[in-house]
Amino acid sequence: MSNDKLIKEFEAIVGADGVMHSESDLHSYSYDSAVLDSKTPSLVIKPSSTEQLGPVTKLCNENGLPITVRGAGTNLSGGTIPHPGGVVLLTNGLNKILEINEQDLYAVVEPGVVTAQFANEVAKRGLFYPPDPGSQAVSTIGGNVAENAGGLRGLKYGVTKDYVMGIDFYDVDGELIKSGSRTVKCVTGYNLGGLMVASEGTLGVFSNIILKLVPPPKAQKAMMAVFDNVDKASESVAAIIANKIVPCTLEFLDKATIRYVEDFTKAGLPTDAEAILLIEVDGHPAEVAEDAEKVVDICKKIGATEVQAAETAEDRDKLWFARRNALPALARAKPTTVLEDATVPRSQIPAMIRALNDIAAKYKLDIGTFGHAGDGNLHPTILCDRRNEEEYHRVEAAVDEIFDVALSLKGTLSGEHGIGMAKSKWMEKETSRATLDYSLKMKRAIDPNNILNPGKIIGV
Amino acid sequence: MSNDKLIKEFEAIVGADGVMHSESDLHSYSYDSAVLDSKTPSLVIKPSSTEQLGPVTKLCNENGLPITVRGAGTNLSGGTIPHPGGVVLLTNGLNKILEINEQDLYAVVEPGVVTAQFANEVAKRGLFYPPDPGSQAVSTIGGNVAENAGGLRGLKYGVTKDYVMGIDFYDVDGELIKSGSRTVKCVTGYNLGGLMVASEGTLGVFSNIILKLVPPPKAQKAMMAVFDNVDKASESVAAIIANKIVPCTLEFLDKATIRYVEDFTKAGLPTDAEAILLIEVDGHPAEVAEDAEKVVDICKKIGATEVQAAETAEDRDKLWFARRNALPALARAKPTTVLEDATVPRSQIPAMIRALNDIAAKYKLDIGTFGHAGDGNLHPTILCDRRNEEEYHRVEAAVDEIFDVALSLKGTLSGEHGIGMAKSKWMEKETSRATLDYSLKMKRAIDPNNILNPGKIIGV
Repeated sequence: MSNDKLIKEFEAIVGADGVMHSESDLHSYSYDSAVLDSKTPSLVIKPSSTEQLGPVTKLCNENGLPITVRGAGTNLSGGTIPHPGGVVLLTNGLNKILEINEQDLYAVVEPGVVTAQFANEVAKRGLFYPPDPGSQAVSTIGGNVAENAGGLRGLKYGVTKDYVMGIDFYDVDGELIKSGSRTVKCVTGYNLGGLMVASEGTLGVFSNIILKLVPPPKAQKAMMAVFDNVDKASESVAAIIANKIVPCTLEFLDKATIRYVEDFTKAGLPTDAEAILLIEVDGHPAEVAEDAEKVVDICKKIGATEVQAAETAEDRDKLWFARRNALPALARAKPTTVLEDATVPRSQIPAMIRALNDIAAKYKLDIGTFGHAGDGNLHPTILCDRRNEEEYHRVEAAVDEIFDVALSLKGTLSGEHGIGMAKSKWMEKETSRATLDYSLKMKRAIDPNNILNPGKIIGV
Repeated sequence: MSNDKLIKEFEAIVGADGVMHSESDLHSYSYDSAVLDSKTPSLVIKPSSTEQLGPVTKLCNENGLPITVRGAGTNLSGGTIPHPGGVVLLTNGLNKILEINEQDLYAVVEPGVVTAQFANEVAKRGLFYPPDPGSQAVSTIGGNVAENAGGLRGLKYGVTKDYVMGIDFYDVDGELIKSGSRTVKCVTGYNLGGLMVASEGTLGVFSNIILKLVPPPKAQKAMMAVFDNVDKASESVAAIIANKIVPCTLEFLDKATIRYVEDFTKAGLPTDAEAILLIEVDGHPAEVAEDAEKVVDICKKIGATEVQAAETAEDRDKLWFARRNALPALARAKPTTVLEDATVPRSQIPAMIRALNDIAAKYKLDIGTFGHAGDGNLHPTILCDRRNEEEYHRVEAAVDEIFDVALSLKGTLSGEHGIGMAKSKWMEKETSRATLDYSLKMKRAIDPNNILNPGKIIGV
């Protein structure tokens, strides 16, 4: 079909306003937040109702046009970089919260709903949607589900996967597939909703998503523990868990990160420290008081030079403001920020941090490390300039080595950023050739023309 | 290949002791706990190591022999009834707990580990594995995962799915597929572990399973609320949740069930009540005390005639012993017990209970209803005699109507018992033809010879 004819057919589905193909539009959607080359699509389609997703997908399939669904484009692994000449399918017109059910503790949303806005609406009803990826202020529920987004509260509350009760999605023929339900328990048919989570847009186009809600904790307490030695910080993480305390958040910042963040936020972080832990416990007020006291004792016993508890809501906000600005603060330092998320069992954090320091020294690179210590999910962040080819070769070699270390410590390539295009070449090392073949068989059966975000995850 | 030659090949893999084909062996494994006709397999294979699962599966595939993996055979939907002439693959020789990691809060187990034994071993280390299906004393983790088994603690703690961090499984070519990891967060590749959950043995043969553990609650309190009116009981369920209390267990027993249970257990249940709720709250002692007080107030305000709190561990055990004996008590009453698990959003429980009473009257059937009210997961249990054809037609018509009502209330066919062979004919009604086609495409690609538990879930 000629391009003009195709455009007319798409316009017939989504209206003239919903089809964009100017040079600037195509450029705007040619990249995402990953450090990877951009790829220019041929069309950008913006549906205004979820019902339009089926016909759009079908038309793409009939014409062999690759589709990349895009929420906010905050993807860090290239999952939302389109196929050259393909279609970018925007979900930002599909942003209705359809239902928040207070009695049955669930919500139904369209895929383009912004995560933080959704969490706020839920909070207004006295309920709680815990997943809080770093991108939450702009990223969408659809994107969070497609990536199985994590965040700061993963240790206690789990990740996006743990809140998906059901998903309706369109297959390549434009048919609506239904999975899961509005009930707490549902085992009717294959767990296709579970399969959609982390599938990065390669197995279906999401329509409505049913999410689990929980009652919010009645109290919380945030603390900062300061260390003059990195090992003591990671020992404290292990000791807190070993004492059967599961903080809702347990974050680590290394020396480099502390300095960049303090320079950026003036939050009052101790710039002479080797590491800090930011810890928040939540729950019943009595439990919070006890757990907070124990956390302070544990950190002091292991050798924290100082432990501050946030006494006011303002103090607490300041600490989390500092943590949430870790990435932007590091990103100011150099033109290119390579943010990794290799993850290890939490007891391996001391080994991982030592390895990261060795790798930084070996490749003469500036690496700031922060992240979700309680999950074993650190974010070593390499500050560099991609235009410097010699340096970037060292960056790539360092990233290879980071993955090798994570796997040798029984960890994983990616805790929460996804595989996308950035990591598909390492997939076989963590899993097996047979695992990729199994995935490929499934993908080919479901998407024989390979139009659903080709090239992502399994690399074809 | 001749049967004798096949037997020799299986013996070469699992040893002579691991291949059974006497008439009594074949009969023993021809049925499960569902009220369905038995089907006689041609061989029963009992591997003694998970490594044998790959070659056994491959040999079956090469010879077009259907495999039904069987744990304890407690399946209520016919998921472990073999294909006639097929192979039953027993997991009871694969019952090693390979690792309980206290620091990293996970365990690795073989599929044949018995759930309650595993939970006990975990408890000895001061940790907690919450899923507690009714069959836990004999059922296996592999079976629990294949069915996504629920239980009494689903409301607060979730179901088996919520504890599966990873699964290694064999494909039909005998290759080992790896999914998930020992880390809290992992998004490396498709969520194949999530897909295995509830797949009823139709997509792969499970090897090692990685399970999430949590710290146990510090205290708990069990209560019994007695009602002279069913609506007041279900209103109390809704009011407890609306007050942001999430009990770990919130069970309902109707009049018929109370009487049968009391007759069987002598636990001291009020046989003149129309309904009782058994409620347990857990957590920090202060929270437990407050929540228990609120629960008592709520039930009394709505009109409970009596609310008893278990003051001693013995009292508590007695209440749960009574609840756990609901099914055996009902099963004593008549030769055949048809136990259903249609599930509705919990706010629809009053409507569901009214409908069940109407259906019992309409079809002149004896239905005892009990179950997980907090999950909306009731177990209407039809007491009958399958040999009475006329009566059994009424039973089948009543079951049809129960499903219709559950779906009309935005519920689901099955909360926790699985689809198996018993409910596959209703699948399309809840989902869609396209959903079944999507599932079929996946199944055919993964298992082209249709040897993995054929006939289950999607009915082919």
